Amino acid sequence: MSISIQGTETGIVHTIAPRTGVAFRLAKGQTLTVIDPEGQQVSDMLAYNARDTNEVISSGRSIDYASRLFLTTGDILYSNRSNPMLVIGEDQVGRHDFTLTPCSKDTFRIIYGDETPHHGCQGNLEMALAPYGIGPDQIPIAFNVFMHVDTNGETGEIRVLPPLSKAGDLTRFEAQLDLIIALTACSAGQSNNFTYKPIQYRID
Amino acid sequence: MSISIQGTETGIVHTIAPRTGVAFRLAKGQTLTVIDPEGQQVSDMLAYNARDTNEVISSGRSIDYASRLFLTTGDILYSNRSNPMLVIGEDQVGRHDFTLTPCSKDTFRIIYGDETPHHGCQGNLEMALAPYGIGPDQIPIAFNVFMHVDTNGETGEIRVLPPLSKAGDLTRFEAQLDLIIALTACSAGQSNNFTYKPIQYRID
Repeated sequence: MSISIQGTETGIVHTIAPRTGVAFRLAKGQTLTVIDPEGQQVSDMLAYNARDTNEVISSGRSIDYASRLFLTTGDILYSNRSNPMLVIGEDQVGRHDFTLTPCSKDTFRIIYGDETPHHGCQGNLEMALAPYGIGPDQIPIAFNVFMHVDTNGETGEIRVLPPLSKAGDLTRFEAQLDLIIALTACSAGQSNNFTYKPIQYRID
Repeated sequence: MSISIQGTETGIVHTIAPRTGVAFRLAKGQTLTVIDPEGQQVSDMLAYNARDTNEVISSGRSIDYASRLFLTTGDILYSNRSNPMLVIGEDQVGRHDFTLTPCSKDTFRIIYGDETPHHGCQGNLEMALAPYGIGPDQIPIAFNVFMHVDTNGETGEIRVLPPLSKAGDLTRFEAQLDLIIALTACSAGQSNNFTYKPIQYRID
């Protein structure tokens, strides 16, 4: 099977069109910068071990080891095997979500009541990851870059609010393993204040 | 391969010894009751579609659809394919966790600094699920019955506190699909106030 490698050229800014997604390789030691070019947009990010794609980013392990729901500069994104995959570097936003699965047809059907739902970030991630042999059931909770989920510590109620990111804000991630990364420009209206903007990224 | 079926007799109370785990089939329409016989103990619960074990309980979908981190009576535990797996029935405790992966050798190494760590709930779940062909990488965030994770909505800080369950308290789950269930008596000191007690369950 031929492997489609999307946007892996280093040192230049790649743009992810609204409501789409991409996947690419990120080598150990490289830095991924995720940029919100227009502000108030979210990017669902997944990471897989490029040598064994059964090893995947794990919100449950990362939150447990940080003892914090909200991760930022210096925090480690661990795999399901408790290996560090990415370390968060410079973070100009400081608020991201790590509790929710990517939006999907089912999200739009169940939460929004859409009768002909968009395939969402889940659909975009499935298409982007298929060339790497990664199937729909292997998509866990993503690290939702710039996603602002307000959390009530007393009741547990959550509210998806507009991201705190302003135009040009960025967050950097340093690869600790050879990875396959998937990234989206989020498709869910609630997540991006119903503006459906692009996302940009850069590999250095 | 012979399949070991553990403790599936209906209408009687089964006991899970301290720091161990079991797995068993739960048919659509049956009710699983998880009981804390001595109080302040946690049980990590996993659910798989018995007909296709790639379909598994998903905290990210369940929390998203409930718009709440803490789930209780009437809430639905969804799969990664957005199908209802279990509905929470009577709940005498009302506080459970759905954000953390099962405790493991790595948990005890990273958080507790143990040099010869116990294999934890992760190890017990792996052993209990192996006869069903379910491997270690297929173990996601569990529904951690009775686990009390204090959450600061401002900072995102979490603290694992003693469960609110008193001796004999129970929570019921109604199966919406034919399931394979795995349950533990939790091995992590923080989760059960360093008492390492048994857990009981009953199928009706």
